[in-house]
Amino acid sequence: MNAEEKFELITRNLAEVIGQQELKNLLKEKKEISLYWGTMPTGSPHVAYYVPLLKVADFLKAGLKVKILIADLHAALDGVSWEILEKRQRYYEELIPLMLKSISVDLKKLEFVKGSSMQLDKEYFEDLLKLSTIASIRDTTKAASEVIKSIENPKLGGLIYPIMQALDEEYLKVDIQFGGLDQRKIFVFAREFLPKVGYKQRIELMNPMLPGLMGEKMSSSIKSSKIDMIDNEETVKKKINNAECREGDKNNGLLPFIKYVIFTMKKDKKEKFAIKRPEKFGGNVSYSSYEELEKDFITKKLHPLDLKNSFSEELNKLMSSVRTDKLMELYKEAYK
Amino acid sequence: MNAEEKFELITRNLAEVIGQQELKNLLKEKKEISLYWGTMPTGSPHVAYYVPLLKVADFLKAGLKVKILIADLHAALDGVSWEILEKRQRYYEELIPLMLKSISVDLKKLEFVKGSSMQLDKEYFEDLLKLSTIASIRDTTKAASEVIKSIENPKLGGLIYPIMQALDEEYLKVDIQFGGLDQRKIFVFAREFLPKVGYKQRIELMNPMLPGLMGEKMSSSIKSSKIDMIDNEETVKKKINNAECREGDKNNGLLPFIKYVIFTMKKDKKEKFAIKRPEKFGGNVSYSSYEELEKDFITKKLHPLDLKNSFSEELNKLMSSVRTDKLMELYKEAYK
Repeated sequence: MNAEEKFELITRNLAEVIGQQELKNLLKEKKEISLYWGTMPTGSPHVAYYVPLLKVADFLKAGLKVKILIADLHAALDGVSWEILEKRQRYYEELIPLMLKSISVDLKKLEFVKGSSMQLDKEYFEDLLKLSTIASIRDTTKAASEVIKSIENPKLGGLIYPIMQALDEEYLKVDIQFGGLDQRKIFVFAREFLPKVGYKQRIELMNPMLPGLMGEKMSSSIKSSKIDMIDNEETVKKKINNAECREGDKNNGLLPFIKYVIFTMKKDKKEKFAIKRPEKFGGNVSYSSYEELEKDFITKKLHPLDLKNSFSEELNKLMSSVRTDKLMELYKEAYK
Repeated sequence: MNAEEKFELITRNLAEVIGQQELKNLLKEKKEISLYWGTMPTGSPHVAYYVPLLKVADFLKAGLKVKILIADLHAALDGVSWEILEKRQRYYEELIPLMLKSISVDLKKLEFVKGSSMQLDKEYFEDLLKLSTIASIRDTTKAASEVIKSIENPKLGGLIYPIMQALDEEYLKVDIQFGGLDQRKIFVFAREFLPKVGYKQRIELMNPMLPGLMGEKMSSSIKSSKIDMIDNEETVKKKINNAECREGDKNNGLLPFIKYVIFTMKKDKKEKFAIKRPEKFGGNVSYSSYEELEKDFITKKLHPLDLKNSFSEELNKLMSSVRTDKLMELYKEAYK
């Protein structure tokens, strides 16, 4: 893969790249480029977690060194009680590799880092204090506004959060940070403030935000809008069947997921997305691109029920290897 | 000294005590009681530093174990640049023992602790994060309001400040914190929030705030209002002579200082405060209590000029042992 091809793979499906030229230069000049993606062990992850994990797969294929930060202290700052924190973190640490394996990612190239294992270091804390004398309450409030849960009487921790996320770029010694578009203000904050304590600006890659399967933004805190990774086959089927999806209307939560997750995987495996249906409803059909499928859906050649059935099957195929006994055990400890 | 006598000595001249009954109980029940006073290495200390140091002397005489915290990280949070911080801290560490010696305090009973030597510990930072998930932005803003310099676009560090000061009580393993009345909101914050992370409430002792010699609040940041500890004899004389002090009017900056510093020392040494003046102006006179002196001043039996002359002499006597070559050297490094 040459630098241009790598650039295409790294940035495919992204909503935004800050530092596009820097990334191009880096790909030409630097041998080992590293990236991190941080995830807070808060609610129980749902299937939308495949969206960032597919990007992780892309980064690895492009030869990047990838670190996944299990941001336990950030989860605490976001309101996860300190008592439950470690159980949540253990659940995430078990789940994420299983999900990555289910999409055939080679874990040997990946590194998992637990936030508190590096964020409680002397130097880290001193840098946090340094940044807190440079960044104003206004700066940090703005940076945290889309990431921290909004509550009536916000806690101070919410303002420490963006400073720590900025420092993570330095302390993980990475060139790039990856996250959802909801991280944008924190990424911009990191770009502005790291140089003020003598650290370099990082490239920031952002995934689009997908709607939930039921129509809302997919959120682990709204139970009805998500398919939990521990949901069994029947539940997955039922939830997908209940998802809002009107014939001919592409505004629903299923299609974006099918586009970003199912078709990305199919394309990489050079497979097609197969719809199985009785002859009387048009018989089996298969799509090699999302655009074809969307076209058929809009023109009502593809019925929501048939789409849902095939999608359920694809999703359950992925999820079956994830739902191990050990995972279910850790789930019970973390969320019951 | 029995418990009652100790209580009297510990609380004499104070403006407020939070936990008066707790202190009484402690004095009856606990053998080794410890207290800390924190001072930020910010501006160059002025003679008003004798006010808390005389209380430190009282605490020691009452048998308390006293720790003086040189709060370098707090100074940084208050705006002292990280580059100059260590030089300021070295100056304070040299100056304070010299001042204590000048008022005959036995340094062997004292412990000096540098803030960053314990505040950068893992457990401390973790507790700071814990408290930041419990204390709101509103709580910390209120707590810091009188201590942190007010600036147009306040920095986040100002809100971390009260959390650290609360934790210092726990990490210094003391029973009591001592400070000026301007610390009241932070002390109340500490009393409220330490128990929320499982630590005990501490007794809080507060000194009154003295006006500056020129009439304003004595502040190390207003040059004209203070007599710096490194000022030479001539400068001390000149500053005192320039101080606002109208005949018969007790509202000036000199009398409170004379009351809290000069008379406290004189009383303990069983000495009198002597006024030397020519026969034609009434001849020499000496006072064994501040009240007598104030009465004479109000009734114009004691002229401001005579008061100033004697006060200058007393102050220069104290300060002469403090202005060592080494101190002057450190001063130049810290403030030039």
